[in-house]
Amino acid sequence: MAKKGMKIAESKGRLGVLMPGMGAVATTFIAGVEAIRRQLALPIGSLTQMGTIRLGKRTEARRPRVRDFVPLAGLENLEFGGWDLFHDDAYEAAVKAGVLEARHLDPIQDFLKGIKPMPAVFEQRFVKNLKGENIKRGAYAALKSRVPYANGAPNLTVDTPALLELAGKLRVPVCGKDFKTGQTLLKTIIAPGLKARQLGLHGWFSTNILGNRDGEVLDDPESFRTKEESKLSVLEYILQPELYPELYKNFYHKVRINYYPPRGDNKEGWDNLDIFGWLGYPMQIKIDFLCRDSILAAPIVLDLVLFLDLAQRAPEMARRGIQEWLSFYFKSPMHAPGLYPEHDLFIQLMKLKNTLRHLRGEEMITHLGLEYYD
Amino acid sequence: MAKKGMKIAESKGRLGVLMPGMGAVATTFIAGVEAIRRQLALPIGSLTQMGTIRLGKRTEARRPRVRDFVPLAGLENLEFGGWDLFHDDAYEAAVKAGVLEARHLDPIQDFLKGIKPMPAVFEQRFVKNLKGENIKRGAYAALKSRVPYANGAPNLTVDTPALLELAGKLRVPVCGKDFKTGQTLLKTIIAPGLKARQLGLHGWFSTNILGNRDGEVLDDPESFRTKEESKLSVLEYILQPELYPELYKNFYHKVRINYYPPRGDNKEGWDNLDIFGWLGYPMQIKIDFLCRDSILAAPIVLDLVLFLDLAQRAPEMARRGIQEWLSFYFKSPMHAPGLYPEHDLFIQLMKLKNTLRHLRGEEMITHLGLEYYD
Amino acid sequence: MAKKGMKIAESKGRLGVLMPGMGAVATTFIAGVEAIRRQLALPIGSLTQMGTIRLGKRTEARRPRVRDFVPLAGLENLEFGGWDLFHDDAYEAAVKAGVLEARHLDPIQDFLKGIKPMPAVFEQRFVKNLKGENIKRGAYAALKSRVPYANGAPNLTVDTPALLELAGKLRVPVCGKDFKTGQTLLKTIIAPGLKARQLGLHGWFSTNILGNRDGEVLDDPESFRTKEESKLSVLEYILQPELYPELYKNFYHKVRINYYPPRGDNKEGWDNLDIFGWLGYPMQIKIDFLCRDSILAAPIVLDLVLFLDLAQRAPEMARRGIQEWLSFYFKSPMHAPGLYPEHDLFIQLMKLKNTLRHLRGEEMITHLGLEYYD
Amino acid sequence: MAKKGMKIAESKGRLGVLMPGMGAVATTFIAGVEAIRRQLALPIGSLTQMGTIRLGKRTEARRPRVRDFVPLAGLENLEFGGWDLFHDDAYEAAVKAGVLEARHLDPIQDFLKGIKPMPAVFEQRFVKNLKGENIKRGAYAALKSRVPYANGAPNLTVDTPALLELAGKLRVPVCGKDFKTGQTLLKTIIAPGLKARQLGLHGWFSTNILGNRDGEVLDDPESFRTKEESKLSVLEYILQPELYPELYKNFYHKVRINYYPPRGDNKEGWDNLDIFGWLGYPMQIKIDFLCRDSILAAPIVLDLVLFLDLAQRAPEMARRGIQEWLSFYFKSPMHAPGLYPEHDLFIQLMKLKNTLRHLRGEEMITHLGLEYYD
Repeated sequence: MAKKGMKIAESKGRLGVLMPGMGAVATTFIAGVEAIRRQLALPIGSLTQMGTIRLGKRTEARRPRVRDFVPLAGLENLEFGGWDLFHDDAYEAAVKAGVLEARHLDPIQDFLKGIKPMPAVFEQRFVKNLKGENIKRGAYAALKSRVPYANGAPNLTVDTPALLELAGKLRVPVCGKDFKTGQTLLKTIIAPGLKARQLGLHGWFSTNILGNRDGEVLDDPESFRTKEESKLSVLEYILQPELYPELYKNFYHKVRINYYPPRGDNKEGWDNLDIFGWLGYPMQIKIDFLCRDSILAAPIVLDLVLFLDLAQRAPEMARRGIQEWLSFYFKSPMHAPGLYPEHDLFIQLMKLKNTLRHLRGEEMITHLGLEYYD
Repeated sequence: MAKKGMKIAESKGRLGVLMPGMGAVATTFIAGVEAIRRQLALPIGSLTQMGTIRLGKRTEARRPRVRDFVPLAGLENLEFGGWDLFHDDAYEAAVKAGVLEARHLDPIQDFLKGIKPMPAVFEQRFVKNLKGENIKRGAYAALKSRVPYANGAPNLTVDTPALLELAGKLRVPVCGKDFKTGQTLLKTIIAPGLKARQLGLHGWFSTNILGNRDGEVLDDPESFRTKEESKLSVLEYILQPELYPELYKNFYHKVRINYYPPRGDNKEGWDNLDIFGWLGYPMQIKIDFLCRDSILAAPIVLDLVLFLDLAQRAPEMARRGIQEWLSFYFKSPMHAPGLYPEHDLFIQLMKLKNTLRHLRGEEMITHLGLEYYD
Repeated sequence: MAKKGMKIAESKGRLGVLMPGMGAVATTFIAGVEAIRRQLALPIGSLTQMGTIRLGKRTEARRPRVRDFVPLAGLENLEFGGWDLFHDDAYEAAVKAGVLEARHLDPIQDFLKGIKPMPAVFEQRFVKNLKGENIKRGAYAALKSRVPYANGAPNLTVDTPALLELAGKLRVPVCGKDFKTGQTLLKTIIAPGLKARQLGLHGWFSTNILGNRDGEVLDDPESFRTKEESKLSVLEYILQPELYPELYKNFYHKVRINYYPPRGDNKEGWDNLDIFGWLGYPMQIKIDFLCRDSILAAPIVLDLVLFLDLAQRAPEMARRGIQEWLSFYFKSPMHAPGLYPEHDLFIQLMKLKNTLRHLRGEEMITHLGLEYYD
Repeated sequence: MAKKGMKIAESKGRLGVLMPGMGAVATTFIAGVEAIRRQLALPIGSLTQMGTIRLGKRTEARRPRVRDFVPLAGLENLEFGGWDLFHDDAYEAAVKAGVLEARHLDPIQDFLKGIKPMPAVFEQRFVKNLKGENIKRGAYAALKSRVPYANGAPNLTVDTPALLELAGKLRVPVCGKDFKTGQTLLKTIIAPGLKARQLGLHGWFSTNILGNRDGEVLDDPESFRTKEESKLSVLEYILQPELYPELYKNFYHKVRINYYPPRGDNKEGWDNLDIFGWLGYPMQIKIDFLCRDSILAAPIVLDLVLFLDLAQRAPEMARRGIQEWLSFYFKSPMHAPGLYPEHDLFIQLMKLKNTLRHLRGEEMITHLGLEYYD
C-alpha cells in the first residue's frame, strides 16, 4: 500500500435509520436486517455485506470483503424508525405488504411489533446519528440537521441546485434518485453490452405487469410521467446517440406499466429489443424478468445507509455533498452541474470500487495488465 | 497528452487476409467489407470502424473514432484469400451459406467470383503481409512465417504452451479462441450484472436451435464436448464461486445445442436463469435471442485483422505474443500462464480501451472522477 | 349418403369482389389470389382451398377437399374491384403496405396495376354478382342490392337488429364482424383448452406491438375502446364464469396495443396467463406470437367470399340472413337474437363442417364411435 | 329425454384405489382428495367434479355438473392403498415429493400417516372393488381379478393385443397410456388450432427443464426413447401430413428433456413453432409453460378412477374393454385395432361428453344449430 488513504472517523454507537413510510420496501429491509442479525437468512444483493474488492495485481490474490476493507458500521448497530400516515406497526405492515413469507416474519414478530411509526412529520430525537431514506417533505430539515439522505423515489423535491450546493457546504452526503431495480436494472446491464459490441438499436419496448399499489398508481399515464422520464433517459445516456448516430439516433423506446392484480408485489417485466448488426441485418432479444421489487430494493437501502454513514465520517467525501460514486444504485443518479449522469452499471461499479480503493490509498484498477507478459 | 505513446510502424501497401475455409463467416466477412467499401452498407458491430474512445475528462469532450485514434490499416487495403476443400468461388459459397440476401450479394457478384479458394494446404505466396484467421493445420507454419493469427474456433491445436512461447520469441501477435457471439456473448453481459449486484444463481439453462452445419455437428453430444467446455467455463470465471460461495457455489449450468433445420443460419438461443436475492427469495430471467451467428462474427474478424496488424507493427505489443487485450472477442481468451482468463465483457472492453490509450500515451480511465466535485 | 342435401344453384360466370379500401389486407388478398392462380404460391390458411372434410366413419377414409365437396366458385372466376380515398392502383398500394415481398409482387405487377380504386362511394355496376368485404358506408345499399357481405372490422354500423332482419327477408347472407387473427385467434384456441381441463384463470394479460397504421390508431386508448370490447369479450363467452364461478369468476383480463414502428406490418403479441390447478396451485403460460396480420386475414377474405357466394346460391341458407356457421372467422360473430355468440374455435369449426355435411346430406359427426368396439 | 339411457348398476360401499408407488403423483392425488373432502381446497382440474355438460339446445339452459348427470361414486367413498419399494407412509412420501406445501399437508397429517405402502407385489385383499392406477407388474393379475386399470406411464406392458382382447372378454374397462400433462397437453390444444386454420408447420422444437426423478431419468437419451415416441406421435396424428402434404409433410419435430435440479417438481416447457401462412410467409409462436406435473396429473387420476368405476357398472361399456372415450386424458390413447388414435383435445372432449350423453339417453351435440334461424 504505497499511497495514503483518507481520514475516516470511527463508527461509534447506534446508527439510526429513518424510513419515510412503512411500505413494502421499508418493511422488507427492516425485517431482513433483523433476520440476518439472527442468522436466519443472508444479505443477498448487498455489495457491502457480500461483495469483495480486488486489490493490486490479479496474481496477488488480495480480495477482502468490502465490509472488511472500509470501516462500515456493523449491522448490530442499526436502529430503525419511520413515520407513516397509518398506525400499523412494522409487523402488521410487513404482513400487508405481502413480500416476505410467514416463515421469515414469524420468528421476528416481537422485534417488528416494537417498531411503530411516528406521525408523518420529521422528528428531532433521531438527529444525532441518523440516515433518512427517501425523506420526502423533511428534506431541507434533514440537510439543516446534517442528516445524510438517499432519495429512492423519482420525485424532484430534493435535488434543486440550491439544496445540492447547501449539502456540500454543510458537509452532508446526499445521493439519489429512484432506486434501480427490475427492468431498468436489466437495461443498464444490457445496453452497455450492445454498445460495447457496437450493435445498433431500432427499438426497445418494455412492458411491466404488477399488482401492488405502485402498479395501480403508475398504470395511469398521468402519474407515470415522472417515472417514465427516469426510465426512458437511461438508454439515451448509455447509448449516446450523438456519438453513434448510425447506431442509436432514431431508436424507438417505449415503457408501459400495467396494473395486473394477480401478481401482487411480484412483478414481471417483458422487453423486446430490435437490434441490428453487420450490414444492418436485424436480430431480436426478448427478456422476461419475473422479479420482486422490494427484494431488489432492500439491499440497496442497506448499502446506502452504510456508505452514506461512511461518507459522513470521511471529511474528504462529505464536503463534496453529492456522492456520485453511489450512482450504481439509482435510475437517475445525482451529479455535478455540467456533467452528464453515468448510467452504465459497469462504469458505475468501477467508479464505486475505485472510490473505495482511493479512500484507502490502494492503486486504481485499470485492467491494463501488460506487465504479466513481460 | 503528457505521456509518450509506443512506437508503431507505418501501415504500408496491401494487407492480405487468409481464411481457412469459405464458409458462412468468411463469406459474410469478405462480402461485407466489399459492400462497405462501395458504401452500400455499414460495418455495424465493428469497434474499429464504428467505435469511439473517450480521452481525458468527461468535460473535455474528446471522443475520436477508434480508427482515427490508432493507425489502423484502411479497409481499401484489405485483400482476401483462403483455402477450402470445395471449389466454390466466394460468390457461390456465399449464396450457399444463406446469410446475406441477394440485394447485398448481387451488386458485388463480380468481386466475389474473383475470389477462388486454394486447395486446403498452406500457401507461401501470401506470407509477406498476411493475417490468417483460424489456421487449423498450418498453425506452426504461420508462426514460423511470422504471420499473426486469431483462432475463431474452439479447437486446441494452436495454444500449447510451447507454441505460445514461440509466438512471443518470434514477435508474432496471436489471440483466440472461439469467437464470442450469440448466447455466450449475452452470458458475458448478464453474468457481470448479476455479480455487480450480488444476486445469487441457482441455475442457468441454455438451449440453442440452429439449422446450419454447425448445428448438425454440435447436436451430437460427443462433438459438442469441446465447445461445451468453452461455453460452460465463462460463468465459472465471471462469477467466481470460490470468492462468493453463498451466491455461486452450486449453481447448475447446462448448455444444449439442437439441430433444427427450419432456421438455417439464423439461430435462436433460449436461456432461463434462476436467481435469488435478499434473504434468498427466488426470481427468474428468461432470454430469447433471435440472432445470426455470421452477422455477429464478421465484424469480429475485421477488428481482429486490423488490431493484430497494428500489434505486429508495435514492437512493444508484438514481443508479448499473446494479445490478452483482445479477450473481448473470444469465448476462451488466451492468457499468460498462471493467470486466469478474463470473461467479463466490460472488464475486457476496459482492458482493450486502456491498452489503446496506453499505446498512444493517453491517461488511463479509472472512472474515479472526484475532481468534478472540488 | 342416406339423407338428401340442399338445393344449390350452379356457380356461373365471374364473381365480383369489392373491397372497401386498398389497404394491407385487400392488396395481400388480391395479389395472393393472382399469385395462386399463376401457381406461384399456395393458398395456405384457406379452409376452402386446403381443407378437407371427413365423411362417414374413420375407417371409410372419405376425406375430400372442401372445395371438391361443396360447389364453390373457382378462383379463376374471381374479379376484383374496390374504392379508396387514394388513387394508388393495387400495385402501388401493395408496395406501400409492405406486407408482400418484391419476389411475389413483381411477377404480377401488370395485373395489379390494372386494378384502380373507384372514388369511395358505392358503385352499381358490380351489383349483379358481387361480394363486398367490410362495406362501411354502403351497407344498407348492399342489402338492398342483394349483395352478401362480411364485415371484417369491429365497427357497429351493419349489425342493427333491423338490418339483420332485413337480410333474412331479402335472402342476403351476411356475417361478421372483426376478422379473428393474431392474438385473439390464439386466445380462442387456448381458452377452450383450459376450460376442457377445468384449469382456473387468475389473469390474462395481452400486449401487442405493431408499427402499421392500425397500431398508430389503436395505441390511443379512446380509439381502442371498440376494438377492446371485441377482444375482451371472447374470454367471457368461452370460459362461462357464470357456470364455473370457482374457476373463472374474477379473472383479470387486460389487452394493450402499442404503436411500435420498428416492426411495420409485422406484429408481435405477448400474453401472460396466470392459471391454477389442483387445490389452487398456480402455474403460468407465456406466449409470444410473431405474426403478420394481413397474412392471417387474406385467406379469411377468400373463404368468406366463396362461402357467402355458396350460401346465396342455397336458398335454405340465404333465407336465414345471418350465417352463424361462419363464426369461425370472426372476433365478434353475428348470431340470432336471444342466443350467445360462440367463440370457441373448435366448436366453431365443428359447426362449420357439420353445416357443410348437412348441406350435402351427409351424416353429422359426433365423435361417439362406440361401434368400433362392437 | 326422448331416448333411453344405458343400464348402470348402483355405486355401493367403498371404492378402493391402489397406486403403484407412493411418488409425487400418488401423494398429490391422495392428499388432495382428503383436503377436498375436508373442504380445505377445491378439485380444480377435475372434469368429473368441476365440469358441466350441456344438454339439449343452447336456449334450454340445461347444464348440470358431470357428477350430477352420471351416477359417479362420491369422494367420501374413496379408500387408498398402494405399494412401494420404500417404507415411507403417505405423509413422509408427500413431504419428500415436495409438491404440496405444509399449509396443505399439515392439517391432514394424521390421515396421510395412516396410509402405509405394501411391499411391491400385488395384493388380493383389495380385489373386490378396486381401481389400480398404473399397475406395472400386476397387470395381468388385475385383469384376471376384474380390476379396471388406467396406465399413466408410457411403458408398454399392459397393451398387447392379447391382453386388450382379454379385457373385453372379462368385461374389465381399461385405458391408457401416459397421462397428458404439461407440454403435450398444450400441443394437443395448439396443433388442432393450427390445423383448423390450415396454417403450415416448418418445425416444432420443445424443450423441458425439470428437477425431479423423472427429469433425471429422462435426461438420458436412451431412457427417453419410449417417452419420446409417445410425445412425438401426437403431432403426426393431429396434423395428418398424409392428408395435408403441403402443410405438414416435412415439419421437423424435436423434443428434449433436461434434468435441471433448481426447479424440483416444478417444470418449465419452452416451445418454438415455425409456422407459415398465406403464400408461405413465415411466423413464429413461442410458448413458455411454467407448470407442475403432479398438479396436472392428480385430477386425471381422480377422473379416471371415477369414470372407470362407472364404466364397470355399465355392462354396455365394460364389455368393450378399451374405453376410447377416455382418450382425453392420455398421450398415447388406447384404441381398437385398425383405428388411428385420436389426439386432438377438442375431439377427445366431444367424444367423452357425447359418450356421457349417449349413456344417459340424451341427444348428441353436433353444433349445427340452423334451427335457431327458422
